[in-house]
Parts: sequence; C-alpha cells; structure tokens
Amino acid sequence: MNTCVHPGVQRPGTAPRPLPLVLRTALENRFGAPFSTARAVREQHGRDESAFDLTPPDAVLFAQSTQDVADAVTLAARHRVPVIPFGAGSSLEGHVLAVQGGISIDLGRMNQVLAINAEDLSATVQPGVTRKALNEALKSEGLFFPIDPGADASIGGMAATRASGTNAVRYGTMRDNVLALQVVSASGEVIRTGTRAKKSSAGYDLTRLLVGSEGTLGIFTEITLRLYPLPESVAAAICSFPSIEAAVRSVIQLIQLGIPIARCELLDAGSVRAVNAHSKLTLREEPLLLMEFHGTPAGVQEQTASAQEIANEWGGQAFEWASTPEARSRLWTARHNAYFAAIQSQPGCRAITTDTCVPISRLADCLLDSLAEAQASGLPYFLVGHVGDGNFHFGYLIDPSSAEQRQLAEKLNQQLVARALRLGGTCSGEHGVGLHKMDFLLSEAGAGAIQMMRAIKHALDPNNILNPGKIFHF
Amino acid sequence: MNTCVHPGVQRPGTAPRPLPLVLRTALENRFGAPFSTARAVREQHGRDESAFDLTPPDAVLFAQSTQDVADAVTLAARHRVPVIPFGAGSSLEGHVLAVQGGISIDLGRMNQVLAINAEDLSATVQPGVTRKALNEALKSEGLFFPIDPGADASIGGMAATRASGTNAVRYGTMRDNVLALQVVSASGEVIRTGTRAKKSSAGYDLTRLLVGSEGTLGIFTEITLRLYPLPESVAAAICSFPSIEAAVRSVIQLIQLGIPIARCELLDAGSVRAVNAHSKLTLREEPLLLMEFHGTPAGVQEQTASAQEIANEWGGQAFEWASTPEARSRLWTARHNAYFAAIQSQPGCRAITTDTCVPISRLADCLLDSLAEAQASGLPYFLVGHVGDGNFHFGYLIDPSSAEQRQLAEKLNQQLVARALRLGGTCSGEHGVGLHKMDFLLSEAGAGAIQMMRAIKHALDPNNILNPGKIFHF
Repeated sequence: MNTCVHPGVQRPGTAPRPLPLVLRTALENRFGAPFSTARAVREQHGRDESAFDLTPPDAVLFAQSTQDVADAVTLAARHRVPVIPFGAGSSLEGHVLAVQGGISIDLGRMNQVLAINAEDLSATVQPGVTRKALNEALKSEGLFFPIDPGADASIGGMAATRASGTNAVRYGTMRDNVLALQVVSASGEVIRTGTRAKKSSAGYDLTRLLVGSEGTLGIFTEITLRLYPLPESVAAAICSFPSIEAAVRSVIQLIQLGIPIARCELLDAGSVRAVNAHSKLTLREEPLLLMEFHGTPAGVQEQTASAQEIANEWGGQAFEWASTPEARSRLWTARHNAYFAAIQSQPGCRAITTDTCVPISRLADCLLDSLAEAQASGLPYFLVGHVGDGNFHFGYLIDPSSAEQRQLAEKLNQQLVARALRLGGTCSGEHGVGLHKMDFLLSEAGAGAIQMMRAIKHALDPNNILNPGKIFHF
Repeated sequence: MNTCVHPGVQRPGTAPRPLPLVLRTALENRFGAPFSTARAVREQHGRDESAFDLTPPDAVLFAQSTQDVADAVTLAARHRVPVIPFGAGSSLEGHVLAVQGGISIDLGRMNQVLAINAEDLSATVQPGVTRKALNEALKSEGLFFPIDPGADASIGGMAATRASGTNAVRYGTMRDNVLALQVVSASGEVIRTGTRAKKSSAGYDLTRLLVGSEGTLGIFTEITLRLYPLPESVAAAICSFPSIEAAVRSVIQLIQLGIPIARCELLDAGSVRAVNAHSKLTLREEPLLLMEFHGTPAGVQEQTASAQEIANEWGGQAFEWASTPEARSRLWTARHNAYFAAIQSQPGCRAITTDTCVPISRLADCLLDSLAEAQASGLPYFLVGHVGDGNFHFGYLIDPSSAEQRQLAEKLNQQLVARALRLGGTCSGEHGVGLHKMDFLLSEAGAGAIQMMRAIKHALDPNNILNPGKIFHF
C-alpha cells in the first residue's frame, strides 16, 4: 500500500461522501453489473502511477458507450456528485484520484477503433483504445500514430493530459495531433468539436482547449487523430558522450540546424547502468543519446550523417546503428523501461519524478545546475529526457518510509521547477498538473491567467463535478 | 464606396451610439493626438477586404504600448463601450467593422520585433509587425516565419484569425506556430499565456483558445512565434494539367504518400489567364499546380522527382522549375496577386470569396461539384486553393450594383459550405467567421458547441465589449 503524500500539495478540503442512495439506485437500475461499488474495484480506480495515497472513488462505472457516459454524467450532475474519467491509470500526477469522492467512469471498455480514414491520414477512436492497440490496427494500412509517452496509455487519457513523449520532437504532441473530439459536457450533453479537415478558422478552438484539460471540462468519448505514413526508412542510433553537457550541446546544435530527427533521448550513466541490468544490454555506461531518424532511405542517411558529424564534434563515441526493426525495438523497449529499471536498481524505493521543459538554448544550464543539486543532495537519482524538445525528467529515488527523503526530493523538484520557470520554461512538459503541480502552475501562469482558466471552468462546469480538485483549486 | 451587405447575415441589433462624453474626455486626456474621432480616420477603420458596408467606429486609438491598450480597455470597460483591435485591415470576413460602435484600437504602431531567440527558433513581436517585416528582420539570422496568407497582414491579426496560407501544408497554421501571448483582457488586465518552451502540459491551453478568437476574448499585445531555419535548398515547380480533377488527384496522392511539400497551390485556367495578364507571365492557361519544396539539396531533388512522377501519372505537362530566388519570387507574387488579377479581369466587379476546407480524400468531389455549380450559374468566377491542406477559395465576380448577382454568389457559397460540411469539412479554412459565417458556424459546430463557445465568451467578457457581434450572436 502506498503511503506517500507529497508535501506542499494542498489536498482539497471537501471530504468524500458516499453516493446519495437515490443516485446509487438510479445508476444500478440504469447500468446493472458494469456499475460497481465493490471495494476492490474502487481501489483499482483510486491510484495512478504517482506516489499519492490511494484515494478511491465511491463507485465505478465501466462505460460501454457515449450514451452510458452521458447518462451517468446527467445523473451525477443532478446530485452534484463528481465524475472522474479513468483510462489506463498510467497518469503520473494523481489525475484519477477521487479527492472529492464521486464516480470513476472507466472508459477501458470503449476500446473500438471506429474509423480509419487512410486516405486522409486520420482515424477516429474510442477513448479506451491504447496507443499500442491503435498502432496494431494501423499497421496493415501502412500508417502509424506517433505519440508515444512510454506507457501503453489510453488515447483518451493521452488527449486529456496533452501527452507527448519520444516522437514529439518531430511529430508534435497530442495538442497537434487531435483533430476533433466528441465530448460529454458537465450537464451530460454530447458535443462535437472540430472536424476531419486538417485546419479550420471556424470559431473558438474548443478541441485545443479540451486537450490537456485533465477531465475537468468534459469527458472525451471519441477522438479523431492525425496519422502519418509509416516512414519508408527508419534508423536508430546510439552514441555515448564524455559528459551530459557534451550530449546536450550536440542535441542543441542538431535542433538548431533543423535536422528533422524523429526521436532524441538522453539517458545519464546511472540510467544506462540500470537499463543494462534490467534489459540485459551492454550499452557503455556513460551519458547516452538514443536517436531515431525517419524518411526516405537517402534522407535518413543524410540525417544520420549530419547527426554523427555533430556528435563527433562534441566527443561522441561509439556511434552505433540499430537498423533492424528487432534491434530498434529492443533499444526503445529498454528506453521505455528506464523508469522501472531505475526503481529496481534500488530495491524498495519509489521515484519522485520531475517534468520541466525549457527553451532548448537553456537546456544545458537548466539540466547541469539541476544535476549538481541532485548530486549534492546525496539522493540516488536518474535522468532521462526528450531533450530534442527541451523536456527532461529527474527521478529521485527515495525510501518511501523516510519523510526526510521525500521532503528532500520535493525540495529538489521545487528548485528545478523554479529554475525552469526563470529560464522561460514550463512546470510540466507532458505529465500535466493533476494534484501535484497546482502551485507551480500558479507561479508559471500568474494569477491573471489562472483566473481566466478558473472562469472557463466555472462557465463550463458550474457545479464543479468534472474531476474536481485537479489543475487548480475551484 | 462599398454598398454591399451580404444576405443571410444577421446584423447585430444594437445600434451604434456615440461615445459617452466622459469616456471621450478621459481618452483624450490620457492619449492626446493618438486618440482620434476624425471622420476620415474612423472611416479608414470601418472596413476590411470584405465586401461589407463601411461601418466605422466612434473613435480610433493608435496604441503605442501594452499599457495604452490596457488603459483604453479599462476605460472602455467602465462605460461598457466596445473595443475592436485593428491590425493591417486585411481580414476578409468583416472582422474589424464596428457593428456595435465603439473604439477601434489600431495596433499598427506597435510594430517592434521585441526579441529574436535564434537558438530557440522563436521570436517575440508586437502585434503590428507584419509578416514581411518579420521575415525581413529574420533574414540575417538564417531564419524565417512561414505563415503566409498572401496579404502582408499583421502578426496580431494573423493570430486573431488563425491564419494560414500557402506554407501551412508543411509548417502548420498560426494555431501551431504561436507559442505564447501577452493579452489584454476584457477588464483591462495584462495576462500572459504559454511560455517559450516548445511544449507544455501545464493547465488549459489558453494560447490556443485565444488564437482564432477574432478579438472577442482579448487583445494581443505580444506574440511569441516559432521560427524555422531557412531551408538549405528551395525549389519551386509549376505543372499544367488537362483538368482540375487531374491536378487535384495528383495532389491527393502526393499528400497521402507523405511527401513533405512546402507549398501546393492550385489555380484554375481562368486564374492563370488573369495572373498572366496582371503579372505579365506566360503560363499555360490550363489548370496549374504551383509547388515548392524545402530541404537539403538532395532531399529537395528527391521530393521534386517524386512530385514530377506523380504529376506525369495524372497527365501533368510542362513541369517547369523556378530554381532562382528571383524566378520563385515572381511566381509567388503572381500567386498572391491572383485575387486582384481576377478582380481586374472584370472591370468594376467585386469578388465574393469562399473558404472551405475538407479532408483531402473529399477534395476532388467537393471541388468538382462546386465547379459545376459555378459554371452553371453563369457568374464569372476564379478558383485558387491551398489544395495540399484540402482548403480552397472560389471567388465569384459580381457587379456590386446587382442585388441578383450578389444573392446568386451567396447562394453558391451556401451550397459550397453545405457540401463541405457534409463531406466532413469546415466552413472556414483560414479566413475566420467574422460577420459572414455565423450561421455556417452554427451548422458546423452544432448548438452544443456554440453554447460552449458562448459560455466561454460570457465568462471572459461578461459585458461583451471585445469586438462584439463577431463569431456568434452574444
């Protein structure tokens, strides 16, 4: 059982209440077995991948259709009971925790790919489709959906947190790749935003407002996505560097030259060591860049030659290719497992992770100062990053029973965020605000912008039933 | 003097009132000469490039700083008097017309490039900087800003209408290329949205909500933009086709294959004829594709070879290169002048233009059916399009004194929009809603989404002073 509560987080004051009996009865009558108040089910829906305390909802509905979601929200709205959309449970900032009680609406059974419009490079999916399942469905069409946060997250959850990950440097984030949404509003109405057209100037961009709103403005029931043709040629390369700084400087140069690199990941020596142990690899245990290039065969060759040249200038060694799909897949699996590998390297520990993103020119400064702080703290840590975007994560490995270590890790995080903000960056590159970053968001956006966000929330969800207690205090 | 009022447009009911004397005095005291109520100045600010009646504001303020804008809005808010941001006056749907009176805030004197962060590929500009002025300032840095709607529009206006244009097929629209904003809110408060970080998951995406809000949610006083390295190699090509259909089919194939074409423009034979006459060119007077490719020399060569092969398959002839900057510039100037060239081809006429965008698989159907309708109508017309995005414009050339012709043109537009919506498209690819497309927007978005937009407008501008009467009826 997880017993960690992050210091500095103000837990909302409203104490959870059990569901009103009349609501519970109405939900049982409407939904039958897919509506559950069983403790085990509730507990499954009271945690994500964050280190927060288990905070279960009062009930769980396994929705099977848009109408299910609409009906559940309509009933909940009548009783002003919170509803919390739940996808794969892989979010990292406490997004799905029922901090004010209410009903978790599990969208995992809404897992159909509704349409693949191969000619238009778009697809419409239900929110419970995971990114891997989508890519499996797309393979025979010669298409893929690039957004890859590591976890096999649900597309609904990825849209709700504005996820990105390894491919974002080339293909953008969920912000750039959601064309249209079907959404259940706070009153239970079904609304569509956007169209399948690639661009539009028709009114407010509700799609972009909803993407990243973390379930606080509506529940997504259909998502239309941009797709991409599978690249004719793909090459991955790894390169070791004498220092983090050398690796980062080489990335900065690569980006500034406009080389259309598809993935550009940094692992510090500790992460490489953990990955080697976890994934049975023999990578040099030095700062490592893991890169991928997409294009025509000639284009990929040109990109990789440029990348190699830049890496050499910064002392990059052991520039190696993984040109077979198997070798590439092995490398990327290792990268995706870096988090778990690091945790396993310190038995019994938990990780408190950071998620800042800064303008690329400030990346080296931000990263090196934070590295020095992490080293000075004495806490074990690991460092991985989507450095092509200026986005990186420290994971501070703590003994969960040590309040002191937890406070130290939080302090390091606070210092890191403050630094990133001073350098023109953001407190969250891709994980979202959830419960954990409300104060950071206020520092970043300022009272005026937060007031604007709040006004929007009040306007669209006046009774604050949609995932309350997240992003900001209502 | 323009005497055209589009049928089907409901003009807002509130009749313009002169400014309250106390407000006028306060503005005169605060601003002096840059505040004007002279008729000629007001009339200059009462029209754009649309065919709407001159609708002047009650006064004009030539703002010179963010503080000017904030002070003017604060004063106007106190008296519930409308404020209308004014950039270059090149919008196409009546955006800047003072349909409820009020103060036009001319941002043209706020024309400083505040910062160029070459290493981060970003710049921060005041709203009155035009796209050409920005690119002039960027040239020595080896960078450019790709969004190019044809007119030398102001960056503020382009952000407000979510502009795009010829380069959008490769580089996206203003939606994708505005990183951050400084905004004066309806109460006169100065707010910042976004940061210079390339991506963020920190709270609601206010930047994207404001981009395309047509001055109805805030007035932009600083805009931070993404920039791109000037491509190492650029090649433009023109290719004539036996039919519009053949040209469009070749574009569809090009896009579906993922060839990263930078510009892909269609002109019908009539447009080519007009352009030849206007720009003294000798292009074959047949449906024409005008393409541009950006990349490394080898990459450009590869792209163009693929494009040529595809064009040949569809009967494309006279595939010609414009590889010198001068020849390219001449071609693109001719393309940008197509609108004026067409108008000049029918002395005394005005153009009523359409702006739909459809999924690329439906482009041929949408375009060909609309073409048949235009031909059957007997009205002279021209057709140009950013067809790589599925976005195109018919211009119906009317005698402005003929109510019948105007009605016929509006009917063709209505049929075209209805068709585009049936095919999964949008009523505006890039011009915006303004006064002209409120009913179309309702058809496209549906009552639920419009209600959501209205709720946001009410929340952020409760007294409806920010460019009232645009996008939807308050």
